[in-house]
Amino acid sequence: MTDIARSLELIKRGTDEVLPEELLLKKLQRQKPLKIKAGFDPTAPDLHLGHTVLINKLRQFQTLGHEVIFLIGDFTGMIGDPTGKSATRPPLTREEVLENAKTYEHQIFKILDPEKTTVFFNSSWMGEMSAADLIQLAAKHTVARMLERDDFNKRYTGGQPIAVHEFLYPLIQGYDSVALKADVELGGTDQKFNLLVGRQLQEAYGQEPQIVITLPILEGLDGVQKMSKSLNNYIGITDAPDEMFGKVMSISDDLMWRYFELLSFRPMDEIESWRRGVGQGDNPRDVKIRLAEELVERFHSRELAAKAHEAFVARFQKGQMPEEMPELELASDSGEYPIANLLKDAALVKSTSEAMRMIKQGAVKIDGEKVEDQSVRISSGTTAVFQVGKRRFARISVL
Amino acid sequence: MTDIARSLELIKRGTDEVLPEELLLKKLQRQKPLKIKAGFDPTAPDLHLGHTVLINKLRQFQTLGHEVIFLIGDFTGMIGDPTGKSATRPPLTREEVLENAKTYEHQIFKILDPEKTTVFFNSSWMGEMSAADLIQLAAKHTVARMLERDDFNKRYTGGQPIAVHEFLYPLIQGYDSVALKADVELGGTDQKFNLLVGRQLQEAYGQEPQIVITLPILEGLDGVQKMSKSLNNYIGITDAPDEMFGKVMSISDDLMWRYFELLSFRPMDEIESWRRGVGQGDNPRDVKIRLAEELVERFHSRELAAKAHEAFVARFQKGQMPEEMPELELASDSGEYPIANLLKDAALVKSTSEAMRMIKQGAVKIDGEKVEDQSVRISSGTTAVFQVGKRRFARISVL
Repeated sequence: MTDIARSLELIKRGTDEVLPEELLLKKLQRQKPLKIKAGFDPTAPDLHLGHTVLINKLRQFQTLGHEVIFLIGDFTGMIGDPTGKSATRPPLTREEVLENAKTYEHQIFKILDPEKTTVFFNSSWMGEMSAADLIQLAAKHTVARMLERDDFNKRYTGGQPIAVHEFLYPLIQGYDSVALKADVELGGTDQKFNLLVGRQLQEAYGQEPQIVITLPILEGLDGVQKMSKSLNNYIGITDAPDEMFGKVMSISDDLMWRYFELLSFRPMDEIESWRRGVGQGDNPRDVKIRLAEELVERFHSRELAAKAHEAFVARFQKGQMPEEMPELELASDSGEYPIANLLKDAALVKSTSEAMRMIKQGAVKIDGEKVEDQSVRISSGTTAVFQVGKRRFARISVL
Repeated sequence: MTDIARSLELIKRGTDEVLPEELLLKKLQRQKPLKIKAGFDPTAPDLHLGHTVLINKLRQFQTLGHEVIFLIGDFTGMIGDPTGKSATRPPLTREEVLENAKTYEHQIFKILDPEKTTVFFNSSWMGEMSAADLIQLAAKHTVARMLERDDFNKRYTGGQPIAVHEFLYPLIQGYDSVALKADVELGGTDQKFNLLVGRQLQEAYGQEPQIVITLPILEGLDGVQKMSKSLNNYIGITDAPDEMFGKVMSISDDLMWRYFELLSFRPMDEIESWRRGVGQGDNPRDVKIRLAEELVERFHSRELAAKAHEAFVARFQKGQMPEEMPELELASDSGEYPIANLLKDAALVKSTSEAMRMIKQGAVKIDGEKVEDQSVRISSGTTAVFQVGKRRFARISVL
């Protein structure tokens, strides 16, 4: 395999689409550093692993010698919500933008190489743009094509208002690619339309159009819904080492392979060989540990990753918890199960009063954490290891 | 009738719509001079009577003590055609705009009172506007409402492209009303949508919305199609006195009343009394002469109007041309009729050689004008009085 074929394979790893692949090949063949653009919202950033799928791809480009353009779209953020409908989106000040940029840098430089990263603000060129220039820009796209964008189409046909300025935002995002002469732009699959506008505008302004690379949305810990703060199924990149390690260890084996593809920097060859090993009887937990260590090391340090690993092993492996234990499902009528009743119904204690006594003595643990409160109630949907004393264990799912 | 009721009647004369009339009444009742806005294209102006319907309405407002704002929309003209599709619409330079403005002034001040007229250029405020301001402006209107505009709707549903910047032009026109704090805006019926955008934007910017007054499109000399240069059915306001007089005299009696309403400054009472007179047997030609004189006086002078009247009477009334004469229709195969054949086929001469001789002697006239050229050809669509010697006349239409 040639170097370029290898580069292409690395770039394509985990992506949704590369449009058009032939042009990417052509650009790679020139053997010159490419400008890889990715745009970010200027509002307070607090990244989780879902965001890092794209940042990891930027990092891979850096590994191949290319330049990353980290573009903060502060121009529209400084306009605020011009419809005045959203009281929660007041215009950002210049100071807030710069402060948010610093927070971004603090986080992204855990992944990206600062030497090969330039942070830009689109207010640099958009702030100077006149109304006349914006009209020229708006002349380069049609209303019909805008209305083809999924969300616009749904709102238009559904009778939901679209303000005219919303048609200008994709054009501004596209114009950023013109201003930056981007070779490649990355974005989530939901950004595909806007990224293609960039291609089209670059052509209209006489530039070679950028390659558009879309990346999938990462599933959260549940393996079903997208990772997000509001669904509380996320791993924050500032999560403490033990928490991060534990969360990675809690994901399903299937999801583990997905996370490996999108979040790990290990070569796919290696990951594939592990997958074959698991198919032949290797314990998937041992593989998962490698992922957990890699991620904790990335966002904290090698030392803290090793410590988190040790602590995890101490809690779950070194005999404190058996490898095999009864697995139970208990149904709650009210959506919550009082801890004492749960322990009794799981036959971990003989009576609720024994349960109360054991809690008081500090002899009851949930996932290795001591229960302090006798009145705690376990919510439906919880699955955890419940322990009474040294020997009584059960993995209980509350339905 | 109160003064205000009289004012309202004068303002409504010949209009298509006044939206909303109650607010106009309210504004008039304040007894303060109102700002009456009308927008004009910055491309080379060469006005005909069709354009003066609106200018006359401005004049009536001046008569009532109001201020006219003659707005030249040079901002978009200076952008040119941003789609680059029309090679014939290059951007206007500042100098061209100012030169066109002078040509406008030269023409409109034959009707308007310069003391009560201010000429504005919308580039004064639009040229200063930033892209950010234009976005704020675009936020104040929805895509769905834009697509309700007749021509946009037809193009969208018909699959004809609409460039995004075309949605910005009605907003800019509307913003001009905000910048000028207009009380009233006049326009053709085809401008109704844009004029209403002005109302809406003024409200959005916290101003009392303007009254929208639409004026009908004037029919040309044929009484059917709209007056326009390209249809050659127009009276230009720089037409020579005799030509202007003759063209007015050529219109039908029905069209004469329409022209009186829209082009004359005579009170409607008086015009109505003339109409009753004609109904009772008065010669409509005598009434038409009053209209012809009024218009020639407006665009030339009282003296030249009187001379044009005399010349007309001399030619058509003082026995030089009979009141009654044969009327003929002659069909030409080729679209043109050689003069000699025409005179022969109309039996005004016995042979084409007689026709040639009579032309040479200066004895052949068309509408009173001597024919100099024996080889002249009469085009299809022409209707004129052909005369040979003192006594032979025929009104001939070439089909």
